[in-house]
Amino acid sequence: MVTKPAPDATRRSEKSRRAIYDAALALVGEVGYPKTTVESIAARAGVGKQTIYRWWSSKADVLLEAFLDLAEQAARAAGQEPYAIPDTGDLAADLKAVLRATVDELLDPRFEAPSRALAAEGLVNEQLGREFVSKLLEPQLQLYVDRLCAAQDAGAVRADVDPRIALELFVSPLAQRWLQRTGPISYAYTDTLVDYALHGIAPR
Amino acid sequence: MVTKPAPDATRRSEKSRRAIYDAALALVGEVGYPKTTVESIAARAGVGKQTIYRWWSSKADVLLEAFLDLAEQAARAAGQEPYAIPDTGDLAADLKAVLRATVDELLDPRFEAPSRALAAEGLVNEQLGREFVSKLLEPQLQLYVDRLCAAQDAGAVRADVDPRIALELFVSPLAQRWLQRTGPISYAYTDTLVDYALHGIAPR
Repeated sequence: MVTKPAPDATRRSEKSRRAIYDAALALVGEVGYPKTTVESIAARAGVGKQTIYRWWSSKADVLLEAFLDLAEQAARAAGQEPYAIPDTGDLAADLKAVLRATVDELLDPRFEAPSRALAAEGLVNEQLGREFVSKLLEPQLQLYVDRLCAAQDAGAVRADVDPRIALELFVSPLAQRWLQRTGPISYAYTDTLVDYALHGIAPR
Repeated sequence: MVTKPAPDATRRSEKSRRAIYDAALALVGEVGYPKTTVESIAARAGVGKQTIYRWWSSKADVLLEAFLDLAEQAARAAGQEPYAIPDTGDLAADLKAVLRATVDELLDPRFEAPSRALAAEGLVNEQLGREFVSKLLEPQLQLYVDRLCAAQDAGAVRADVDPRIALELFVSPLAQRWLQRTGPISYAYTDTLVDYALHGIAPR
């Protein structure tokens, strides 16, 4: 039988959990993934190491949840549901709205340093990279797949288009500009990507 | 007055230069950028440290030239000129051919480890990242700008399209799949990206 914890205990746990997320994100942004340890996260969060090991099995697990939490907060801050792309019936408008929220998130300093540090580690540490892609990035990309499939049903995207490839036409350019600093990112930029992806660059 | 070196000296220099490139690329792939030093490159190449400092001012400079040389070799191996995208009058075919050669290069093990190591460092080391983007990546992207401008003159791309953004529709997805391992890369994949980018994913 699972008993519900007393309200005080829940609040205390929630507070520790958030302190641990904040400590993990701050540390990975400051010293990089290899030098971030469960010990240093615990010290910075002001909790015992065993508190962390009660909830998570490794620093990778802590960071994974901390990023999921950050993404959820960012979605809510943008007035969106974290686990769906809106379907107003206007595909271009819906994609532009979600990408504008992503621009805001990418330019948020709380997100910048830890995300870069983790992405950098993922490029050279194949196991970590694959884990974060499968648990963090791919589920977000699947939201675009869902929205593009709905658009196919509604006749707004051609039936022969592969949605998993199509979403990359607007998601990957934004990701590369941000990650590799190959150009500025803005609402006008992501709006343009959506227009080009939907209608192509050749004469119609 | 600049005197031409004797043939023997030129050959000797060329051999040392290539040994230094190979050593620099191998080391950065094996131990990462921060732990690669001019000393370790010299030792591995079998030359004195002063030989490297005679030609380059830093390990970043050595690596920059080593990558430029690698890209040039890859282009020649694919039967292409290194500094232009062919213009046969068929934009889709030309873009597909260049992207297929890029797929080959990305899947070449000589390229894989050093490129990942350098890209990873560029994400967190802003100065190095900006230097390599401006000297290595952006000049390659400008070749696509040139080809798309020619296509605009020929009426194969709409006049209101920004070529510097348009090229990202097919270049960035390939870059992200390779860098972050978000999906397999193949000729079929890059061919599809070109078709979607040219004609869009919405009904025509």
